[in-house]
Amino acid sequence: MQVGLIGLGKMGHNLGLNLMDHGHEVIAYDISQDARRTFEQSGGQTKETIADLVLSLNQPRVIWVMVPAGKIVDEVLEQVVVHLDAEDIVIDGGNSHYQDTLRRAKNLFSKDIYFFDVGTSGGTSGARHGACYMIGGDKEKFAQIEPLFRDTAVDEGYLYTGKVGSGHYSKMVHNGIEYGMMAAIGEGFEVLHRSGFEYDYRALAHVWSHGSVIRGWLMELTEKAFEEDPQLDSIRGVMHSSGEGKWTVDEALNLEVPTPVIAMALMMRYRSRENDTFTGKVVAALRNQFGGHAVEKA
Amino acid sequence: MQVGLIGLGKMGHNLGLNLMDHGHEVIAYDISQDARRTFEQSGGQTKETIADLVLSLNQPRVIWVMVPAGKIVDEVLEQVVVHLDAEDIVIDGGNSHYQDTLRRAKNLFSKDIYFFDVGTSGGTSGARHGACYMIGGDKEKFAQIEPLFRDTAVDEGYLYTGKVGSGHYSKMVHNGIEYGMMAAIGEGFEVLHRSGFEYDYRALAHVWSHGSVIRGWLMELTEKAFEEDPQLDSIRGVMHSSGEGKWTVDEALNLEVPTPVIAMALMMRYRSRENDTFTGKVVAALRNQFGGHAVEKA
Amino acid sequence: MQVGLIGLGKMGHNLGLNLMDHGHEVIAYDISQDARRTFEQSGGQTKETIADLVLSLNQPRVIWVMVPAGKIVDEVLEQVVVHLDAEDIVIDGGNSHYQDTLRRAKNLFSKDIYFFDVGTSGGTSGARHGACYMIGGDKEKFAQIEPLFRDTAVDEGYLYTGKVGSGHYSKMVHNGIEYGMMAAIGEGFEVLHRSGFEYDYRALAHVWSHGSVIRGWLMELTEKAFEEDPQLDSIRGVMHSSGEGKWTVDEALNLEVPTPVIAMALMMRYRSRENDTFTGKVVAALRNQFGGHAVEKA
Amino acid sequence: MQVGLIGLGKMGHNLGLNLMDHGHEVIAYDISQDARRTFEQSGGQTKETIADLVLSLNQPRVIWVMVPAGKIVDEVLEQVVVHLDAEDIVIDGGNSHYQDTLRRAKNLFSKDIYFFDVGTSGGTSGARHGACYMIGGDKEKFAQIEPLFRDTAVDEGYLYTGKVGSGHYSKMVHNGIEYGMMAAIGEGFEVLHRSGFEYDYRALAHVWSHGSVIRGWLMELTEKAFEEDPQLDSIRGVMHSSGEGKWTVDEALNLEVPTPVIAMALMMRYRSRENDTFTGKVVAALRNQFGGHAVEKA
Repeated sequence: MQVGLIGLGKMGHNLGLNLMDHGHEVIAYDISQDARRTFEQSGGQTKETIADLVLSLNQPRVIWVMVPAGKIVDEVLEQVVVHLDAEDIVIDGGNSHYQDTLRRAKNLFSKDIYFFDVGTSGGTSGARHGACYMIGGDKEKFAQIEPLFRDTAVDEGYLYTGKVGSGHYSKMVHNGIEYGMMAAIGEGFEVLHRSGFEYDYRALAHVWSHGSVIRGWLMELTEKAFEEDPQLDSIRGVMHSSGEGKWTVDEALNLEVPTPVIAMALMMRYRSRENDTFTGKVVAALRNQFGGHAVEKA
Repeated sequence: MQVGLIGLGKMGHNLGLNLMDHGHEVIAYDISQDARRTFEQSGGQTKETIADLVLSLNQPRVIWVMVPAGKIVDEVLEQVVVHLDAEDIVIDGGNSHYQDTLRRAKNLFSKDIYFFDVGTSGGTSGARHGACYMIGGDKEKFAQIEPLFRDTAVDEGYLYTGKVGSGHYSKMVHNGIEYGMMAAIGEGFEVLHRSGFEYDYRALAHVWSHGSVIRGWLMELTEKAFEEDPQLDSIRGVMHSSGEGKWTVDEALNLEVPTPVIAMALMMRYRSRENDTFTGKVVAALRNQFGGHAVEKA
Repeated sequence: MQVGLIGLGKMGHNLGLNLMDHGHEVIAYDISQDARRTFEQSGGQTKETIADLVLSLNQPRVIWVMVPAGKIVDEVLEQVVVHLDAEDIVIDGGNSHYQDTLRRAKNLFSKDIYFFDVGTSGGTSGARHGACYMIGGDKEKFAQIEPLFRDTAVDEGYLYTGKVGSGHYSKMVHNGIEYGMMAAIGEGFEVLHRSGFEYDYRALAHVWSHGSVIRGWLMELTEKAFEEDPQLDSIRGVMHSSGEGKWTVDEALNLEVPTPVIAMALMMRYRSRENDTFTGKVVAALRNQFGGHAVEKA
Repeated sequence: MQVGLIGLGKMGHNLGLNLMDHGHEVIAYDISQDARRTFEQSGGQTKETIADLVLSLNQPRVIWVMVPAGKIVDEVLEQVVVHLDAEDIVIDGGNSHYQDTLRRAKNLFSKDIYFFDVGTSGGTSGARHGACYMIGGDKEKFAQIEPLFRDTAVDEGYLYTGKVGSGHYSKMVHNGIEYGMMAAIGEGFEVLHRSGFEYDYRALAHVWSHGSVIRGWLMELTEKAFEEDPQLDSIRGVMHSSGEGKWTVDEALNLEVPTPVIAMALMMRYRSRENDTFTGKVVAALRNQFGGHAVEKA
């Protein structure tokens, strides 16, 4: 089927190719001309403006937005919506906060436009060769766009999760779990690293990917990471984050659900971005005050 | 090859069958007559005493001990060792603490007996149809017993990890990671459970097993668990533990490695076994003292 | 000086008496007639409506609002503000969220009314006999109301913390610290409780209140709590919370500051309110799936 | 009364002076001649060897050992015990692990020598001007040495806690609580530090020391620390630890008591001693693997 794709970044570009591989007609737009050219060179069609894109689509239109979460989604939707008609469909395949999604859906529904929130997992390679989708929105309308997900997901890798918001919400939680899992793997390897045994980390991640309880894609990627850099000497352990882990903890606090593992995974990411901490200074100063313990000079 | 197998519990029984499937001759012993009868009914040979077992094996003997970690391993080894000769090989496939392993290996080495510590992952089904092994011990001798692991592991599912102790150590860390991963999954589902969206947990675990970043065996088992009991209504959330998670945290503390995620996963297991906490009583009493906040009566 | 006091709950009533003890003229209002009668019986003046209260005050008026945080503050302010004139002063002595404070202050400033946010610590006894105040607002105007704080605080127990918002913000952080301290004390006593030594908890809290590093008001209150109930047998360890601990963690997450101790103190409060957890069910079910470990039936 | 004092470090020296202030006869020894000279210059008596010290005391002897925890205590006791007679009394006023204490007490009891384990809190100033003692050992014998504690403690600042071991055990827990409290204070100030409000930290710690719920000695020391260095610019936030916090967590794990707050306080101390973490490298590498997120080069 025909789909308008907005956003040709790491995820959008790959998704576009994936859709075309499965016979869908993709007409794409990105604010960056470079991104558009690259997509064209890969055989895709592009338009120079959002208006051109929207107006070139057959009605009812299907527009898949694949841009970074936040204000930019609102900006895109604002430009899109003026050209849309009743019964058109907008898909947000990015990592939007579910509360933004609820607000946007409400706004679009007031114009008889259907909004689907799609959590997309599997990384950039998944977007290209088979992603995993969690899809919230109108159940009946979903049938109309289901082929897009069926075709670009891995086998059985898409789910209609319920009413609008449920797709992004479950993706948020998915990422929260991911934070916890990654931290657990990292902590385990740090213990190994300090153990005195001289482990071959790549080999260990490899064997753990074959039959162990903790096998899975993250362990396979751990193996790959150690294959590229056996001791990870070339990188610093600074752990950035793009929001969904924080949102999961925010949500847990609002629901009063204890999530100590995900919360600690998140806070250690923040910690990794500090060279020194004020907390540490206060504690060191206190130890000095009561016990005369030496402090380290700045 | 021929192997003496001591311990026919959930793991040992399955391992015995797995070895026989691959043409190895297994002569087994378990303290429980029932366990021996069950193994015989599955086509296995057994002996009535450890002495009988050991003496029936060809030299150099290979004895695979598959009993619960702790004192029982020492008791078994004590009974075994009196009948062993130089060059015999003892494998401990259980979840022994690596420091016990170092002590036992030293003792056996003093008698020219080789000791291998084998961390076995993959659960009971892995033991039966393809396990994952981390193997520590003498590198040259390892070649002699490698077929046993190659044949009963999943493809590429065994690794010689280094000198004695390294097998059990890495299995300990594996389990520590497992604690963190499981807690992360559990916390995620608790957030979903309280979210107000009405998720089909089984379906979500299913889709997350197909293409998502957090796919892996634990997620597949999560799906299976929800398949059997869609809301987990039939069970209580009491999380027991059998030691390796604690040992990982103990080790982390000894190494002064921060492992907040694994530590919190462990402590929440302990918490789940308390109906009420003294910590909570103290805090509730304090809130009452300074703020006049109501307490709940016991 | 003359002050209009709105709110005669546990804190407001005590504050009113404290103000009167120091020669201030207090005209008070509470929505509950009972609360007003009780205050009158203690020698205080009251008015039947907010309007009566406000209009009875000399200009420039000083109104001290001492009601629970949240919507009720807005409702009170709405009723108050219609009767106020330029240069009047409103004090919010409750535990309002600092962002609500910023919004309210902005609104009042637009009417030339001065708003002070006052974090009040010391509990109900502090309100009566000497509180601790953190005060944000206009620096010059502060001089005008300083006597109210000087007189009702313990000696040296008030501080002008800076521009509006800084009072409630620092009170929020104060309470976050309080959560962490209380949890630390509780955890310590739980370890003692399970230790096998038969400690006299009251006596221990008493000696720790005399010369130890951890001496302080919370330890004195711990002693008092154990004096009233030596084993805390009469209460359950359910730890409620009224918001400021959560706000501290919310704020920490927004600032990307790691606060693991305060966050864990908060999450264990949430945990104490659950009889069973979905997290625990998932983990228990997973252990059963891979290892055949028994689950406890609901 | 007469007491032999072994160890003239920060704590021992001050304790010796404190004892003398109260009319006790102190005969002291330290392995360092400098320490002995300093003590003499303060008016104390010293002996050049442990043997001289012990033999110079009247029977039944009272010997107070005030040396760092660990092997050195055993070395001192070994030298002391050969010269002791039945009914002599040895006090260990250091931060020994309670299990070492149990072992030592058993050994001394077998020689009819009484052993008291004394947890000493209050820091170096407490040792000089009034400490806080938790004292385990034989209840009847305790009466004999009680004056030493009564005189050198702050008023009401000593407690007979029960059988031998209970003194050091409760001091261990005291320090665990201290870790949690200090971390809570530190985290709170870090939030303030990043808040955008420009707090005067010293002033805030001062007001919090006057009437607030979190007032106590640690807050007073916080004020002092900020008085000496208003932004703590001169020091690094490296938090060392001398063992008791770790022992508390070890003990909690052995008892299966959840102590998340104390555990996190401890682990953040470890974290503060790392410039970079292997955990962080693994997580950063994984983010790069699945999402193409940039890593920071080492």
